[in-house]
Amino acid sequence: MASKREDVEYLEYIFSKFYDIGANSYGGVTRLGYSKVEDEMHDMFKDLGENEGFDTYIDEVGNTYVANDISDKKYYLIGSHLDSVVNGGRYDGVAGVIAGLLILKWAKDDNLDISIRVGAFRCEESSNFGKCTIGSGLITGELTKGDVGGLVSKTGKYIREVFNNKGYNLSPKKIENIKQYLELHIEQGKVLEEYGIKVGIVSDIAGPRRFDVSILGEAEHSGATPMDMRQDALCAASEFILELEKLGRQESYRKSVTTVGVINNGPNVLNVIPGEVNLGVDIRGIDIDSLDVIEKGMKSLAKEICEKRNVNIFIQDSGRFDPVKMSSYMQKKLIECSDKLKISHKVMPSGAGHDAMAFSKICDTAMVFIPCYRGISHNKSEFSSLLSIYDGAKVIYEYLKGEM
Amino acid sequence: MASKREDVEYLEYIFSKFYDIGANSYGGVTRLGYSKVEDEMHDMFKDLGENEGFDTYIDEVGNTYVANDISDKKYYLIGSHLDSVVNGGRYDGVAGVIAGLLILKWAKDDNLDISIRVGAFRCEESSNFGKCTIGSGLITGELTKGDVGGLVSKTGKYIREVFNNKGYNLSPKKIENIKQYLELHIEQGKVLEEYGIKVGIVSDIAGPRRFDVSILGEAEHSGATPMDMRQDALCAASEFILELEKLGRQESYRKSVTTVGVINNGPNVLNVIPGEVNLGVDIRGIDIDSLDVIEKGMKSLAKEICEKRNVNIFIQDSGRFDPVKMSSYMQKKLIECSDKLKISHKVMPSGAGHDAMAFSKICDTAMVFIPCYRGISHNKSEFSSLLSIYDGAKVIYEYLKGEM
Repeated sequence: MASKREDVEYLEYIFSKFYDIGANSYGGVTRLGYSKVEDEMHDMFKDLGENEGFDTYIDEVGNTYVANDISDKKYYLIGSHLDSVVNGGRYDGVAGVIAGLLILKWAKDDNLDISIRVGAFRCEESSNFGKCTIGSGLITGELTKGDVGGLVSKTGKYIREVFNNKGYNLSPKKIENIKQYLELHIEQGKVLEEYGIKVGIVSDIAGPRRFDVSILGEAEHSGATPMDMRQDALCAASEFILELEKLGRQESYRKSVTTVGVINNGPNVLNVIPGEVNLGVDIRGIDIDSLDVIEKGMKSLAKEICEKRNVNIFIQDSGRFDPVKMSSYMQKKLIECSDKLKISHKVMPSGAGHDAMAFSKICDTAMVFIPCYRGISHNKSEFSSLLSIYDGAKVIYEYLKGEM
Repeated sequence: MASKREDVEYLEYIFSKFYDIGANSYGGVTRLGYSKVEDEMHDMFKDLGENEGFDTYIDEVGNTYVANDISDKKYYLIGSHLDSVVNGGRYDGVAGVIAGLLILKWAKDDNLDISIRVGAFRCEESSNFGKCTIGSGLITGELTKGDVGGLVSKTGKYIREVFNNKGYNLSPKKIENIKQYLELHIEQGKVLEEYGIKVGIVSDIAGPRRFDVSILGEAEHSGATPMDMRQDALCAASEFILELEKLGRQESYRKSVTTVGVINNGPNVLNVIPGEVNLGVDIRGIDIDSLDVIEKGMKSLAKEICEKRNVNIFIQDSGRFDPVKMSSYMQKKLIECSDKLKISHKVMPSGAGHDAMAFSKICDTAMVFIPCYRGISHNKSEFSSLLSIYDGAKVIYEYLKGEM
């Protein structure tokens, strides 16, 4: 088997092959799902697999696989994605795919008799079609033609046109013979970094509940309206934001989080009291009871603010997914492997969504997180060390050896 | 003297002459200061004056006057402006100018031996050049060439170019021989309407203090960052907004108000914790001590929020004017006139700025407010009844008769 230095050099080599694809002049990359740039990423992945002498193939929705065995035998699927958000980073998704290639190479070098396939799944980010995990969703049955067929890309292309042109199928055959699914991913948070821990063993993937909140007050002259005659939509919004934060803090013992990430204020002029504020609310957690408490709390606090401030608040659902549990057997084993390798670890939930969500519906699934610089993701400053990818891959490889 | 019905018909006639000038397809008007549209407004004003047989003239900065006497005798100046904000209403400014024309007509009909001039002052709104009361400011010395010379319009024109082309002078002779200045204006608030009162006698014009507030936190993944690891700039901003509202309420007994009218959030994306929020703060009041209390309070609450939430807050001055007192003699007399005419009245501050601010520096000055529908102003829905303009004009005319 190669030395650690050779392994990291190999990671550097394959990482560099993707580096320029979709690069923009600001330092980031834009590799939108089902775009030509994503095609290039998949072509490169296929080439890298073939160069190592592995079999490769593409499924009915454009997901690409590199395999050490394409017989009908059950196999371990290691995967992630190669697309990015607009002006995104180079590690989100790619880290998991190149970790898979390294693991495949180790298995070959060690002459391991174990069927492994590495999958790169299409369009994991919602940035292009407003929907995430399309590639993994369609082949696992998590998404159907009905969910996806009508979607239109950022540039106005129908997904069914893209599929037609490529010869893809919006109703593909379900993926079969997977023994277990494993995914390495950058944490996209700063928990591992802050604790100085090398890998995270994911326990659950949080389910997001999203809401559009409209607050209607009265836009009036800021100088000419006494304080007690106002229906200030921004003050009402501020109260809503702080109370929702409080709910998130109260429920943090159950690992829930609440965020208002979007605020749009109207008319947004210095001498006019805000008349209308729109908020985008994102609630996430791994415990449905906790999510229910937050959602109910949010709705009742909205009512209180309406009465107190004489404004109207409308709350509209804009998407909800249930949280997903990772295999507890696999978690336990991954912890044992980390211990054996003396790689420090922490069991933790994933706040972000991943392809693993789709696979968890059809097979035992596990995720390994690695730290990323200051938790930054979806941004050109996204950075994770190749040594971290190496550590995470080591743990997964150890796990696979244990399964033989 | 004409009947009330004839007077209101006259108001309707002259109001209608301005109606279409600068009208846009959405129902409002755009009559930016020192634009061609404002020129048209002034030409119309001049025509209306000449049609009634009055003298008219234009001063060195483009302000237009209609007068019943252009001798060197001291005169009463009644004025307001004819420009508007972008997509503004038809009453802000115009109401005061047409009230002036009606008063001039009454004085003529009654053969009153009193010198009255009605002035329409240029560019009262800050919408075009980012600075208000330019026309009245330059002739009263409130503004100088140094304050104004470098200004550039919304469409990129230098004001000194505009002045050159028109033959105007950025250093005009000061206006002389004014006995007193009187201005009728829509309230731009809803105090009169809510109290069911017909005219407001203005006691003071509030001085605004304006600030740009930048709050810097850390933009992170909303799902992957636990509640206790966040530096959420929007939560910090919400706290700032509510505390500033509290300060405004505490100081409302001294008639101060606090408003955050502008909020811009970055990156403003659903799954990212806000990393940077910018606020536009507007504090107004007629009592300098009260304004000082609020400003000091705002700065200390910013400090507290920084410490508590581990964010940075930067507060930058973006403009401040001291409040201005109206003549107490004129106030008292206007109240007596309202009583005599059985027109209900209320002494009140003006939260908004007006041309009267500039004149208060060189002569005794008074303002009469009239109600406007729901306090709406700077908006196509701005509305004030011609009967209200009639009422306000009556009070001013009664005042002038008393001065003879």
